[in-house]
Amino acid sequence: MSRGSTRLEDIAALAGVSISTASRALNDSPAVNARTKQLIWKLAREHDYPFRRYMPAGPIGAAGTVALVVPRPQGREGQLDDPFFLELFAGISDAARDRGCDLLVSHFAPTSFDDLSAAMTTSRADGVIFLGQSSLHPALNLLAQSSDTRFVVWGAQLPDQAYCSVGSDNLSGGRRATLHLARLGRKRIVFLGDTEAPEVQQRVRGYLEGLEQAGIAHDPGLLVPAHFTVESSEASVDALLARGISFDGIVAASDLIALGAIRALLHAGIDVPGQVSVIGYDDVPFARYSRPALTTINQDTARAGRLLVSKLLDTRATGDMRSERLATELIVRESCGG
Amino acid sequence: MSRGSTRLEDIAALAGVSISTASRALNDSPAVNARTKQLIWKLAREHDYPFRRYMPAGPIGAAGTVALVVPRPQGREGQLDDPFFLELFAGISDAARDRGCDLLVSHFAPTSFDDLSAAMTTSRADGVIFLGQSSLHPALNLLAQSSDTRFVVWGAQLPDQAYCSVGSDNLSGGRRATLHLARLGRKRIVFLGDTEAPEVQQRVRGYLEGLEQAGIAHDPGLLVPAHFTVESSEASVDALLARGISFDGIVAASDLIALGAIRALLHAGIDVPGQVSVIGYDDVPFARYSRPALTTINQDTARAGRLLVSKLLDTRATGDMRSERLATELIVRESCGG
Repeated sequence: MSRGSTRLEDIAALAGVSISTASRALNDSPAVNARTKQLIWKLAREHDYPFRRYMPAGPIGAAGTVALVVPRPQGREGQLDDPFFLELFAGISDAARDRGCDLLVSHFAPTSFDDLSAAMTTSRADGVIFLGQSSLHPALNLLAQSSDTRFVVWGAQLPDQAYCSVGSDNLSGGRRATLHLARLGRKRIVFLGDTEAPEVQQRVRGYLEGLEQAGIAHDPGLLVPAHFTVESSEASVDALLARGISFDGIVAASDLIALGAIRALLHAGIDVPGQVSVIGYDDVPFARYSRPALTTINQDTARAGRLLVSKLLDTRATGDMRSERLATELIVRESCGG
Repeated sequence: MSRGSTRLEDIAALAGVSISTASRALNDSPAVNARTKQLIWKLAREHDYPFRRYMPAGPIGAAGTVALVVPRPQGREGQLDDPFFLELFAGISDAARDRGCDLLVSHFAPTSFDDLSAAMTTSRADGVIFLGQSSLHPALNLLAQSSDTRFVVWGAQLPDQAYCSVGSDNLSGGRRATLHLARLGRKRIVFLGDTEAPEVQQRVRGYLEGLEQAGIAHDPGLLVPAHFTVESSEASVDALLARGISFDGIVAASDLIALGAIRALLHAGIDVPGQVSVIGYDDVPFARYSRPALTTINQDTARAGRLLVSKLLDTRATGDMRSERLATELIVRESCGG
């Protein structure tokens, strides 16, 4: 018989057992006795029934398994709610599939060093991707010193970093967004976002550099906190308007935050981009379909996924665990005018 | 010491080994000798160091593992490209996390019965969710008869179905979308989508029922194929316009397809919804932010995720492997007018 033409029914018939027993045997089920299993495995091999292809060398998966763990910010839910993280997940998932690798998405959201250490212990994967640093930078540094298991972190590249990270160049992304608004003549530019996240702190530094470069004095009152949701952003901009603070531009820390800001502005009868320019961050798929279409800073999630997976899988061969800072792109659509 | 206050460093110090060795020992690494491991495990237990909590009973995961496998339609890529499937993934991922369950996303895209059987063998999970039936309905029926491992399928409920499926009520969804356009006075209503997918075939039946109910004669020329991408849909509507076929409404098989149709119409100078009403399907997150905001049929991905996971995890207790057909909702926004 040629490869692939043998079916489970054929194997079962040859062995004189039911299809169910043949399936259990190939499954290495304890419900089938060893002699029957040996017979069925032998028949499967002889007739090129494709069960060996999928029999894992390690605990699971053909070419290996990469675990995905999302550290939880104190007092908040996981970040897979945000469309950007879904895109990043899709990028990682595609990269794992291209490498013949399974992806284990852990239910467990670490909040401490012990948690990170336990996540490494539990996953039994070839490597762990931590999606976002949250507040665990020191703990990740300690983990890099105390663990021989491989891990890589999606996030900001930070001072005194002992682990490998892959992330966007947030500093230049924040500066680029701010300079785009300044070039359009905006002078009172708000930064809107969650400044506890390391990535956002770097974007704020870029924002401050951009203001300085454009000769605009920084007003601390224009640094406005908002969580990574449309609702939180909408509420922040509502509050800003209620306090009578004047502004003509918003640099948002994510596209969701930009959407919330635009909703609040339009609701208050303020034209976007006529009166206020709004720039997002991430370039999630809906950015091009929103009204107005979002001008934003693109992060390359497909490339990020490939790098995160290859750092884990290729390290033994190449030893290349250098951190990567990915270039961003300014995508000009409608929400800033110009 | 109280629970959680012991750190890895403390355990290492008590055992007189390095932090790295302590971590390896808790990792059950072969690089640490058995006596040292026993000592460190004993110390960890005595001092309530939380390593046992995460030590899996089965191969991986605390409360179990659910595997996610995406069958591949013949000659096409996996479906995780579509934002609806990312949403469904997020729903399943949230449900698994709520149950303390890990989620294994398989790299493997089955295209045959043997592939499905191999996917069950490989995953070593407590159960497998097949995301979409593709063309594998007969193979899934056979799998249900030949395998004792649990699986559940996201997709259409089909005649002579031997396995458990969770999916939307596509028939009533298609009918509802069509009747909405008919109520707005539309008479020449296109159905736009990939009619090889079982879910879409049911939506087409709903479309035909809706036309009949509204007293509109069916024109087979208005049943227009398009794949699940913006580009494919745009090309299909361009071709329809080029052939001079008149229509005043489009029932799209997904929100992405609706977006592509709207782009093609606006590009041709045809007003949406002024001249043509377009209704989507799925209610993905961007549907509310597109221009015009999409009127669409909502599928409840959060409920779908909970049902898929609980069917797998609770079956032994309840034996409830009945298929579920989830109600859809009509979400009225702007793209149909009215």
